[in-house]
Amino acid sequence: MAEGQPAKKARLDVKYELLYWPSIPGRGEFVRLALEAAGVAYKDTTNEEENGIRKLLAVLKDSEGHPPVLCPPLLKVLGTESPLLLSQTPNILLYLGDHESLSPTTDDKYLVHQYALTALDLTNEAHNVHHPVSVSSYYADQKPEAERAATEFREQRIPKFFGYFDRILSRNKADGNDRGYAYLVGDNLTYADTTLWQTVDGVSFAFPKRIKEMKDKGECDELWKFYEGLKGEAWLAEYLASSRRKEYSDGIFRYYKELDL
Amino acid sequence: MAEGQPAKKARLDVKYELLYWPSIPGRGEFVRLALEAAGVAYKDTTNEEENGIRKLLAVLKDSEGHPPVLCPPLLKVLGTESPLLLSQTPNILLYLGDHESLSPTTDDKYLVHQYALTALDLTNEAHNVHHPVSVSSYYADQKPEAERAATEFREQRIPKFFGYFDRILSRNKADGNDRGYAYLVGDNLTYADTTLWQTVDGVSFAFPKRIKEMKDKGECDELWKFYEGLKGEAWLAEYLASSRRKEYSDGIFRYYKELDL
Repeated sequence: MAEGQPAKKARLDVKYELLYWPSIPGRGEFVRLALEAAGVAYKDTTNEEENGIRKLLAVLKDSEGHPPVLCPPLLKVLGTESPLLLSQTPNILLYLGDHESLSPTTDDKYLVHQYALTALDLTNEAHNVHHPVSVSSYYADQKPEAERAATEFREQRIPKFFGYFDRILSRNKADGNDRGYAYLVGDNLTYADTTLWQTVDGVSFAFPKRIKEMKDKGECDELWKFYEGLKGEAWLAEYLASSRRKEYSDGIFRYYKELDL
Repeated sequence: MAEGQPAKKARLDVKYELLYWPSIPGRGEFVRLALEAAGVAYKDTTNEEENGIRKLLAVLKDSEGHPPVLCPPLLKVLGTESPLLLSQTPNILLYLGDHESLSPTTDDKYLVHQYALTALDLTNEAHNVHHPVSVSSYYADQKPEAERAATEFREQRIPKFFGYFDRILSRNKADGNDRGYAYLVGDNLTYADTTLWQTVDGVSFAFPKRIKEMKDKGECDELWKFYEGLKGEAWLAEYLASSRRKEYSDGIFRYYKELDL
């Protein structure tokens, strides 16, 4: 078990197993944040078990007893005879939304999914910035193309997406709450919030100067309030301080000085 | 109303309004196919109404009475006082799955969503092939990059994704049916099937020589059977012969000779 794993989690029955590449936040982070927000016990196998990676590779290679799998993150729902094995980040989040109260039961649940999908779209675009031409080649082999892609991402895509979320938060805040910041849908935390938070965190890591510029210009104020507000919530503060949270490295969100402002 | 719209649809109450860019299949096509498969009456406003595009532009510009909208396709669920306005293709499909029996009510519904999301991922990659560096620039401004991206797409991505779907179909077929081809999940048509069908159709349009090569080599046989089988189903055959189906042009799936084999 990872250092920093709180005792309360160890005492609970493990309900879910996350299978993802070890040591990086990556797309697994969207799943981790939802599980952390729900306060549910889970096992992050490749990070917590020696040779845990072998379990992931076995599932990817062999589809005995479950439908074929394309790529991680994978979530195994434990506690049944034939455990459900889910893939596709938004799909895993949808499941957790339905089963761990991270989504409303009304039609608003489709808004939650919509916003999570949109944040994940920006995440994919952030990855395409450093790998515009080929996902199987190195960044070094597509640097000039990455610089062109980064210009468009910084100047057009970040403001487009962040502006959109800022408008949603401003509108929902106007509906009234005394928290000091808004959630995306209604007045309860959903997986849309945890997904947007990770997206803002990752984009801020990869493009710090561009984000500072937006803040200095007073753009998307409601979004930064949301980001800081969520960061201060007990569940997230505890998680970020733990060793369960991995540092950014060669994953989706990368810092290359030449791609920032 | 479009020419070729069948009389039976005109007689039904219109339950949904699709708002999407006119004249192209695009991402709207995944929504159209789900609506057609469900046999539900809908209005494809920008294609059926003179100046229908103005309605789409108004919704994109002004968020009076509904949450802000980032981009089409949009689905308006009619028949209630404040109609639900949904965006994000997989989210619209999720809604139609839940409300129009295009998805099971068991946990298998998460498999349906997983497969639809994966087919849509390949669709996004097919778009990135001709626009690897910048979505806001012309193809002509990124031709050498597009040729590099196309090589990887043809050689690695198509076999990876189509092979995955072929394995799912083969596995589901082994469970037994006398249709001659399998659906992705269980024994009923779902929005995963309609979404995969459109993806195969679009990729085959954009890369005809590559697809012919795969067929000649006997790769992904179960997938082509699925594709031809679905194409022969009455609802799809009728739709494809109607003027509601638009021709491919400058959308997601484009035919550039130099990007194919």
